[in-house]
Amino acid sequence: MPQPKALVRSAIGVFFEYDTPRIVHIRSKKVGIINRLIQITILAYLIGYVIVWRKGYQQFDNVQSAVTTKVKGVVFTNFTGIPGLDGRVWDVSDYVVPPQENGAFFVMTNVLVTPTQTQGTCDEDPTVADARCENKTCTRGEPVNLGNGIKTGNCIDSTVDPGAKVCEIYAWCPVERADNTTQAPTPALLGSENFTVFIKNNIEFPKFDVLRRNILGFDNDTELSSCRFDPNDARYKLCPIFGLSQIVQLAGTNYSDIAKGGGVIQVIINWDCNLDLDVSECLPEYSFRRLDRGDFSISRGFNFRYADHYKLENGTGQRTLYKAWGIRFLVSVQGQAGKFFIIPLLLNFGSGIALLSIATVICDIVVLYLLKARSYYKDKKYLDVKGEDAYEVMDDRHDDDSDGPRQRRNAGNGEDNS
Amino acid sequence: MPQPKALVRSAIGVFFEYDTPRIVHIRSKKVGIINRLIQITILAYLIGYVIVWRKGYQQFDNVQSAVTTKVKGVVFTNFTGIPGLDGRVWDVSDYVVPPQENGAFFVMTNVLVTPTQTQGTCDEDPTVADARCENKTCTRGEPVNLGNGIKTGNCIDSTVDPGAKVCEIYAWCPVERADNTTQAPTPALLGSENFTVFIKNNIEFPKFDVLRRNILGFDNDTELSSCRFDPNDARYKLCPIFGLSQIVQLAGTNYSDIAKGGGVIQVIINWDCNLDLDVSECLPEYSFRRLDRGDFSISRGFNFRYADHYKLENGTGQRTLYKAWGIRFLVSVQGQAGKFFIIPLLLNFGSGIALLSIATVICDIVVLYLLKARSYYKDKKYLDVKGEDAYEVMDDRHDDDSDGPRQRRNAGNGEDNS
Amino acid sequence: MPQPKALVRSAIGVFFEYDTPRIVHIRSKKVGIINRLIQITILAYLIGYVIVWRKGYQQFDNVQSAVTTKVKGVVFTNFTGIPGLDGRVWDVSDYVVPPQENGAFFVMTNVLVTPTQTQGTCDEDPTVADARCENKTCTRGEPVNLGNGIKTGNCIDSTVDPGAKVCEIYAWCPVERADNTTQAPTPALLGSENFTVFIKNNIEFPKFDVLRRNILGFDNDTELSSCRFDPNDARYKLCPIFGLSQIVQLAGTNYSDIAKGGGVIQVIINWDCNLDLDVSECLPEYSFRRLDRGDFSISRGFNFRYADHYKLENGTGQRTLYKAWGIRFLVSVQGQAGKFFIIPLLLNFGSGIALLSIATVICDIVVLYLLKARSYYKDKKYLDVKGEDAYEVMDDRHDDDSDGPRQRRNAGNGEDNS
Repeated sequence: MPQPKALVRSAIGVFFEYDTPRIVHIRSKKVGIINRLIQITILAYLIGYVIVWRKGYQQFDNVQSAVTTKVKGVVFTNFTGIPGLDGRVWDVSDYVVPPQENGAFFVMTNVLVTPTQTQGTCDEDPTVADARCENKTCTRGEPVNLGNGIKTGNCIDSTVDPGAKVCEIYAWCPVERADNTTQAPTPALLGSENFTVFIKNNIEFPKFDVLRRNILGFDNDTELSSCRFDPNDARYKLCPIFGLSQIVQLAGTNYSDIAKGGGVIQVIINWDCNLDLDVSECLPEYSFRRLDRGDFSISRGFNFRYADHYKLENGTGQRTLYKAWGIRFLVSVQGQAGKFFIIPLLLNFGSGIALLSIATVICDIVVLYLLKARSYYKDKKYLDVKGEDAYEVMDDRHDDDSDGPRQRRNAGNGEDNS
Repeated sequence: MPQPKALVRSAIGVFFEYDTPRIVHIRSKKVGIINRLIQITILAYLIGYVIVWRKGYQQFDNVQSAVTTKVKGVVFTNFTGIPGLDGRVWDVSDYVVPPQENGAFFVMTNVLVTPTQTQGTCDEDPTVADARCENKTCTRGEPVNLGNGIKTGNCIDSTVDPGAKVCEIYAWCPVERADNTTQAPTPALLGSENFTVFIKNNIEFPKFDVLRRNILGFDNDTELSSCRFDPNDARYKLCPIFGLSQIVQLAGTNYSDIAKGGGVIQVIINWDCNLDLDVSECLPEYSFRRLDRGDFSISRGFNFRYADHYKLENGTGQRTLYKAWGIRFLVSVQGQAGKFFIIPLLLNFGSGIALLSIATVICDIVVLYLLKARSYYKDKKYLDVKGEDAYEVMDDRHDDDSDGPRQRRNAGNGEDNS
Repeated sequence: MPQPKALVRSAIGVFFEYDTPRIVHIRSKKVGIINRLIQITILAYLIGYVIVWRKGYQQFDNVQSAVTTKVKGVVFTNFTGIPGLDGRVWDVSDYVVPPQENGAFFVMTNVLVTPTQTQGTCDEDPTVADARCENKTCTRGEPVNLGNGIKTGNCIDSTVDPGAKVCEIYAWCPVERADNTTQAPTPALLGSENFTVFIKNNIEFPKFDVLRRNILGFDNDTELSSCRFDPNDARYKLCPIFGLSQIVQLAGTNYSDIAKGGGVIQVIINWDCNLDLDVSECLPEYSFRRLDRGDFSISRGFNFRYADHYKLENGTGQRTLYKAWGIRFLVSVQGQAGKFFIIPLLLNFGSGIALLSIATVICDIVVLYLLKARSYYKDKKYLDVKGEDAYEVMDDRHDDDSDGPRQRRNAGNGEDNS
């Protein structure tokens, strides 16, 4: 029959109480060693590995990035007899196609020029399987599968491969001649290994409001424009101007191989930063990887076609078709930054504390089931209390003498186990 | 007065000790069932759901990706009277504009060609609201809002819409004629549904040093170049060559709809990989979604303008303007990989162990407040100890007989509740 | 000697048991207050900070995005004497180069036109250091470092800078004349500040299957096409049509500065969404930042070169070279969405519960080592049990009277500390 005043006092009393578990303090070398070893292991794991090594006290954020690139270089080709390549200079506007891309750039290293194409009818390329009509007919209006135009229906002699009969097509004529295969001219026609590219990269870690860029450690204009990336030099490994042949070599490829059929190279700029250190230690790391592997010829190399359009006097459209092999550079920016934050620290810490209970579980098993004196220890640890609705495991004569609630009236007298 | 030797022995003694909490072992069907049910629920949640189902034993990393694309296909248009489209073939260099983009490609499906534009003065397009001068004047030097040129100040008759009066403008003349609306010609003029695109995708999970690419499961060149993506075939759902009409259909759209006004389709390559399995099980999943929704006409469809530039004999610049409607394909690569890692496993495990204490909290409430024999159980569980500065809730005759520190002198005699 | 039947009954008995720790319930104002304060702090941290403030009950996913852009605007230049810029109109097809990019667009603001270049020999630009041959020779066949062509071997007078001697080169001639410096013409020649760009952004949070786009809050076509972004207006801060000068201003730069030498501006679309609220509250936030900083002249500004190709009557190739300065806009989409998920909630909760044990650790230290009555409390809390292999710290006369396993035979009689 609690009084209101008593309720209030009880409520206040809650603030002046403290519950602490009662402990059996066992002094035993065997159990003690096992106990301490497990605890030390768990603490070493928690503090040494989770918190210090794996930075369990940090919060992480991924990098956001913006990239612009600029290629420089000039090359001269003088291959007499090869259309479009005898005695001419190629500069950036000629070999970087298209002039700008977001996060990528292409440098032409080899080319097949078909200079004066006009719309009309001509013989299809005999290396295209669907164009051959020795054993089948040419269906008028049907596009040539993997070919250059639409079949007119006529089956004519090939001007390139005597003896072959190919479908006549309506297309930009004359069609591109692949000289027997679609393989690129050998050796590569544009000597672009001395070209350089200036890669500008601005990054942000939005969660931490940190902005960085990859132009670091140079005092003035002249130094910056004359530096060249060097992964082995402490200063020049931060220079953002790269030689193309250097990139290719660091990607593990020979320049003449990749120049012939083209390829795709990934320039990886990695920003892994520990923002608990000074922000000046947040630096980029460059690595390079060749993406096109050579197992299939259609997956090896890189090429695409583009055209320049002209008009003849009479208004007819004419074009120069370029099949450009080259290196497509894709710039990928990756990385994450970590900074101290209380929540992951306490999350890991709390969870680690809970793991310490494993020591108690294991040692209890040893003490209560494995040691010689286990019944003695069990006696000290447990106070058996049988409720009125207890489940009878056995004849209770083997159990403790406490008989449950009725025993209470006799409390203070007689025997008590605990 | 601890001796130095005693201190050392005490310190060493710490390693040979073990503390285990003393337990009241209550045998009661009611409480026992509640206890075990809660424990089983928590364990089932922890092991079954968090660790096994949600892969709580794994660490995750997001995919990093590089994509290149190549379109193939040829189409013939023969629309007499439509400038630039009568009797000509369009190949890849004609309809993929620009020839390369990073992670995207455009295929023209419909076009409005304005063939011989030169810089000069002419009448603006009467469908442009700001060009109409029936009720207002043309301000010299002001650009036409959403128009094609700069007003000269003159208000003249429209050559396209008799009766309309429009501002004369300095622009590339004649201006593009939209034939009454800016809607695209119907039906779409370039039949591009049979074109194919080869999408090459190289991915990396940097944290796990795993590289994959999407050319999988084909033994040689011929097989690869002749395969076609099929989402329902176990083998061909990994073929990276897609038909454009197929992509459009899988995106839930009719090709003729999207070809007319253009559109934007997202090609999603999803790499969700479990790296605890063999890495060969790390496979891409392709899905397609149309991004431009049709609620607003300026948000529906996709078009842009580009021009080919020419020079007349006298050196005057001339251009052919193309308003190109088409499908812009954006390739998005998403996904994450998971691999076993001890830290998330133990983090989840430790936190789950801590949750087991909920069973004790709830059952304690049942035992100490709800059961009939609660005072008996409370007696067995708690040892009341009153400190010298205890807060007096009540007349202490109702409390236990332990009277605090002074009682110790009498320990060993008399009554103890324990 | 357990019987089979007894084993089964024991196993079943496990389900009807409940173990609860025995507790010392200390009533002391000092300790009680410390205890409750620590517990309240930990609970406030857990519930107030981790779960409510930092959304510890949510799971997060990063945004996946697709962007398309469309620029509109026309400008007239009438700079007599400057080639390519006297009396002509520039529209979108002229100044957006290339016509489409993925996630970026370029608007030309300043240009240097070199109109009639053909392949041949001429004098190199005297401002290029490697071209000067007053003190060194010109090596035939060597490209000019950072220059325009290949040296022929001759050293000739410069036509641009009288008195200077430069290497003769084979290149597209005449070379671009930078008028004394490579700085852009001042003021910027193309007045593009009134141009507008419509940025369409579709995003997805794949984990939650949520799709959003940035065209929100407009009822019809006319409203949408006539709105203009305004960061301070509740409605128009969601309008996806931006004025270029407005973007530049919001990026913290003066338009005339950036128009002269060009620059790189990042358009950041941030989607931070709480998906426990209605999805209509998931809205984009636009911000703008200038990326190119001015410390180095080669890192300031933005320009690139491209060319239009023509053919003369005799078939000779001719080109117009454009050095285009302008603003490169890079569209970055960032953000993450959070949604309620049971696992992070219970993970944080469980870990927080484990942290509550800190209260017990600290208060135990107070109670057992700092208070005056500490030996009394220690007595109540601990039951010392000496195993047979106990490590002897001291003469045991100071320890408790329990003598280990042999004592059990006397249990029930005599004194017990409990």
